[in-house]
Amino acid sequence: MLIRLGYELQFEIPAKVSILAMLYVHPSRVPGLLEPDEMALDPALPIEDYTDSFGNRVARFTAPAGTLRLSGNTLIDDPGTTDPVKADAKEHPVEELPHGVLKFLLNSRYCEVDRLSATAAELFGWMTPGWGRVQAICDWVHNKVTFGYHHARPSKTALDVYTERVGVCRDYQHLAITFCRALNIPARYATGYLGDIGVPLRLPMDFSAWFEVYLDGQWWVFDARNNVPRLGRVLMAVGRDASDVAMTTSFGIANLTGFKVVSEEEAARI
Amino acid sequence: MLIRLGYELQFEIPAKVSILAMLYVHPSRVPGLLEPDEMALDPALPIEDYTDSFGNRVARFTAPAGTLRLSGNTLIDDPGTTDPVKADAKEHPVEELPHGVLKFLLNSRYCEVDRLSATAAELFGWMTPGWGRVQAICDWVHNKVTFGYHHARPSKTALDVYTERVGVCRDYQHLAITFCRALNIPARYATGYLGDIGVPLRLPMDFSAWFEVYLDGQWWVFDARNNVPRLGRVLMAVGRDASDVAMTTSFGIANLTGFKVVSEEEAARI
Amino acid sequence: MLIRLGYELQFEIPAKVSILAMLYVHPSRVPGLLEPDEMALDPALPIEDYTDSFGNRVARFTAPAGTLRLSGNTLIDDPGTTDPVKADAKEHPVEELPHGVLKFLLNSRYCEVDRLSATAAELFGWMTPGWGRVQAICDWVHNKVTFGYHHARPSKTALDVYTERVGVCRDYQHLAITFCRALNIPARYATGYLGDIGVPLRLPMDFSAWFEVYLDGQWWVFDARNNVPRLGRVLMAVGRDASDVAMTTSFGIANLTGFKVVSEEEAARI
Amino acid sequence: MLIRLGYELQFEIPAKVSILAMLYVHPSRVPGLLEPDEMALDPALPIEDYTDSFGNRVARFTAPAGTLRLSGNTLIDDPGTTDPVKADAKEHPVEELPHGVLKFLLNSRYCEVDRLSATAAELFGWMTPGWGRVQAICDWVHNKVTFGYHHARPSKTALDVYTERVGVCRDYQHLAITFCRALNIPARYATGYLGDIGVPLRLPMDFSAWFEVYLDGQWWVFDARNNVPRLGRVLMAVGRDASDVAMTTSFGIANLTGFKVVSEEEAARI
Repeated sequence: MLIRLGYELQFEIPAKVSILAMLYVHPSRVPGLLEPDEMALDPALPIEDYTDSFGNRVARFTAPAGTLRLSGNTLIDDPGTTDPVKADAKEHPVEELPHGVLKFLLNSRYCEVDRLSATAAELFGWMTPGWGRVQAICDWVHNKVTFGYHHARPSKTALDVYTERVGVCRDYQHLAITFCRALNIPARYATGYLGDIGVPLRLPMDFSAWFEVYLDGQWWVFDARNNVPRLGRVLMAVGRDASDVAMTTSFGIANLTGFKVVSEEEAARI
Repeated sequence: MLIRLGYELQFEIPAKVSILAMLYVHPSRVPGLLEPDEMALDPALPIEDYTDSFGNRVARFTAPAGTLRLSGNTLIDDPGTTDPVKADAKEHPVEELPHGVLKFLLNSRYCEVDRLSATAAELFGWMTPGWGRVQAICDWVHNKVTFGYHHARPSKTALDVYTERVGVCRDYQHLAITFCRALNIPARYATGYLGDIGVPLRLPMDFSAWFEVYLDGQWWVFDARNNVPRLGRVLMAVGRDASDVAMTTSFGIANLTGFKVVSEEEAARI
Repeated sequence: MLIRLGYELQFEIPAKVSILAMLYVHPSRVPGLLEPDEMALDPALPIEDYTDSFGNRVARFTAPAGTLRLSGNTLIDDPGTTDPVKADAKEHPVEELPHGVLKFLLNSRYCEVDRLSATAAELFGWMTPGWGRVQAICDWVHNKVTFGYHHARPSKTALDVYTERVGVCRDYQHLAITFCRALNIPARYATGYLGDIGVPLRLPMDFSAWFEVYLDGQWWVFDARNNVPRLGRVLMAVGRDASDVAMTTSFGIANLTGFKVVSEEEAARI
Repeated sequence: MLIRLGYELQFEIPAKVSILAMLYVHPSRVPGLLEPDEMALDPALPIEDYTDSFGNRVARFTAPAGTLRLSGNTLIDDPGTTDPVKADAKEHPVEELPHGVLKFLLNSRYCEVDRLSATAAELFGWMTPGWGRVQAICDWVHNKVTFGYHHARPSKTALDVYTERVGVCRDYQHLAITFCRALNIPARYATGYLGDIGVPLRLPMDFSAWFEVYLDGQWWVFDARNNVPRLGRVLMAVGRDASDVAMTTSFGIANLTGFKVVSEEEAARI
């Protein structure tokens, strides 16, 4: 399945400001790209790319005062399969985890493992470890939290989601991640393009957040917001939580005034 | 100046548990070591070392139920000078910062930059950027927060310190780090051995926390708790905040029942 | 000036629920009423009125499952003057305050005086006590907080407003009240109808929140949201914060599906 | 059973300060007093008493700079029975509650009903209403929270207790009160003298906090900290939470430097 991926963002910038953008397709998906994945700025500004400590490709630039347009467009050859499910995947005892995975057991800004560990133990501690327990966490969060765009706010944490029971996709994932970590299950936050539940893709694709869990020696996709296997998930970035992988991080004021994700299934070329 | 460094920790462990220990001398100080820096466990258990994404050397092992003793002892040749002060050190605009430094501008568990950015701007935003502004942040935190061991708690954040105005060394640093980051000044949390204010060292050395700030192309030590240049600071680990560099992190119950830091100036050997 | 006051609320109620409504004109304004101030329910249900410990008139009833309509309509003879300003009004030392006023110096759910007292002292502690200092608090809150309906949430406290700097009218008043109390200035939360800034009233009247401060032996209106003297303010209820004077408090689920405030200046009758 | 009750508090006061003290025996227990219940101040200062909106007797005075001693001493004829238990006491539906009881269903500073209502419903919503459910709440809190004096802090709320699972007596009651209110069970905070579990009293009596729940048309004592019926409980004050009934509230600095509760069973006089 070929998927065209793209975005157009517009900012009004009152004074020169440095910006990081995490809008590239993730390096792990680069082998499937059929077109280059470059970011265009208008006005044209030099972009420097680097790889952060989580392995994400980050674009970095400094924008002058005025209107800034950011866009990108590429084509990916996607397997066209829904998120894999391996119901018998095992949790690893901590001593078996690779070193680099351990950091995904710790506290982070929006995932206060320390404040929700007793609750996690009470709700899920008695369950058989493994895929089923992670799925139970997703089910709980999915069923207990009510979605609403007006419930978004930048400083909202997993504990806030636990007490308020309302949120947007990032909030669902933060709470589920926190529960996993409290049970010593490595979990990390992921952003990317999210497709539909069947072929052909009918839903408009959009940016979304999900999370990944380390079971059976690898990372698996879970999504406490949607909670059904989806097609056309294309990863952009992973990190400890939304702080690490914000679509854009500006070190000063940059007001988002336009936002469009332009993606859809593309007929295979002959 | 030769400094003997060491520690003895004791835990009571009810059931097998994986533990990370960040008690080694930091790799940056290894060239000064005159004796090997190894960790001893009693009972003897295999220890695996690794380097985390911040460059710290971490010990990793799994302890059985029972009493566990952890100890280490080494000797370091320390320059014997107090924390350097470079009053004319400049802040870098964000665009000049190395890629790897950028993560120390972001939110972390105990440093809610998002919730204290307006306050930081009001208190320090008008000041001339540079060393003096960072020192002003340290002065403010040092003068406004009252020290007390009974004010420690694991989940205490920079915002809590800002509102409660009481704390221990980690709390002072978390608040100062948060103010720095809110002003786009990279700041990271540091742990290690802390010595005295003059030679010969008379104060018993102890583990402590301080923080580092990136100015003029390098990291500098600041300490909002003590707020005077000190001697005999030997770094163990750096990270975004206390979550990243806990002395020990146990993935299960391990009750600390004994704790001794055994360090002192040692007469130079002939 | 004659003002017609009224409201129509509609709820969908899944199961029998007890409700308190604080929608009557406050007893202190009853002498000016030219028509009775009664609440009508559809379906018709028995309403019991009582006076709470703050002196507010509260309606109490139990609604069955189904649609519930609540409405009221009355006419008040309003002095037609803007909020009084007495720039030389004095703060009282605590020992002079009447007993009943002391509770408006304490913490309450949305006004965490304990967590903002250091900040209040730093921002306003140095100012000359009296009306001017209260006005300075209103100016600060008015200028620092950005209004937006989407920033409302039920659990938002003064500390949240202080850190997030966004909110709706209740949020402005909670922060200003908290600063006042921290300085030993009695302050209480008020709800009611809010009119325009001049005659004839052109703005549609609406429910709003403001606060009252005890100076010179009486309570005075302040409004950190609008921060200009207004006409046609008709008090409904006062309390420690929004918890005490919610328009309606339902002890179970009652989904608000319609809300209209129907008020306007009425031509004087001959 | 005759119980001698008394206290001695000492403060160091840097500058003139107004103080409220809630150390009298509660009016409901005055009929049992065999000696007058007066407060003595050294230096001798005029004390004004008043009754607050919760029905407590409050002492009010203004202390000059210097050392202040507060003491009281009285004798009460106590029934000598343990806290009554009525296992078949019923919860009232909200519509049956007296008006004055309704305020004990609402949010207060340390009891964030809004943030813990979902948790309360999940933990206890399925249980049969009545005494047994309130006892289940006490059991849960008693078993899940670990006591420790060093876990006390002035700004700690029920949500903090829920997440940290450590605390002192006030913390236990705040969490239990919050759960009750979330289930529409009126609950209020109480302070007073607390005796032993048997006769003769062997434990030194001390000030303590407990809470009261409205069942079967009256208020009943519950104590999530001790969670066994006790003897010699003598009420001093009731309120929404600890904010309303602090032993002393000073509107300025007053450092507590001495504190003794001097109470014991007294041999009956012939």
